Amino acid sequence: MQPRLSLVTLGVADVAASRAFYERLGFKASSDSNPNVTFFDAGGVALALFGRAALAHDASIENSEPGFSGVTLAHNVASEAEVDAVMLEAVAAGAQLTKPAAKTFWGGYSGYFADPDGHLWEIAYNPFWPFDDAGRVILPGPAT
Amino acid sequence: MQPRLSLVTLGVADVAASRAFYERLGFKASSDSNPNVTFFDAGGVALALFGRAALAHDASIENSEPGFSGVTLAHNVASEAEVDAVMLEAVAAGAQLTKPAAKTFWGGYSGYFADPDGHLWEIAYNPFWPFDDAGRVILPGPAT
Repeated sequence: MQPRLSLVTLGVADVAASRAFYERLGFKASSDSNPNVTFFDAGGVALALFGRAALAHDASIENSEPGFSGVTLAHNVASEAEVDAVMLEAVAAGAQLTKPAAKTFWGGYSGYFADPDGHLWEIAYNPFWPFDDAGRVILPGPAT
Repeated sequence: MQPRLSLVTLGVADVAASRAFYERLGFKASSDSNPNVTFFDAGGVALALFGRAALAHDASIENSEPGFSGVTLAHNVASEAEVDAVMLEAVAAGAQLTKPAAKTFWGGYSGYFADPDGHLWEIAYNPFWPFDDAGRVILPGPAT
């Protein structure tokens, strides 16, 4: 297995409503999208929206109601001010604020919002992680 | 907000055990990792492992037990044979097979496994999605 994450799929109650939410945030749907599924190029990884029941069926597991999903998605930005701006933008787009942006224990600054299905996004400024030219986070390499 | 997913964090019961699982699959931990958190470069997006209770606390939500998380992660490969090989490799590394690889309704071939915390990975061959030189999926652009 190559160490590579290709696609993250979020199970949603209403694909059209969820797609509209992400479009309000600036995501642009691939022409491969259809009423049952939406695909976004999320800058190095694909992000998909698919009916929650259909996704559970596809994965062959029971579609039981979640508590905490145990998964968070992060959008890293270049400054504290940009965190604040994106949090405001997300709430204006219909997100639910779950944690107002604040200094973090790891030396950064971040806040969280939930999308219409409760999927958690952290908007984060991490002063220790630079970006490449395409806006992707550059992690320090493996320890040698 | 730029249309960009920077980091996916999986809440796990035991960071060291989960890290060892992903290392058996070929992921290499960034030197930014420590006993509380592991970071992997997942080829265009970062993948983190963090204690589930700590992650819930960080996101300011209750750490209730999940049913179906509503999130799947996909690793796309270039052939059906490669799907089969990766599924075998994952099970040998300690994954639980949740759906044996088979032809899919969308014209591809995929199977699912669960990592030690139940996070679902789909290993997929999609004949309609090419890869770029870095192994990232190339989505068709937005409809014009």
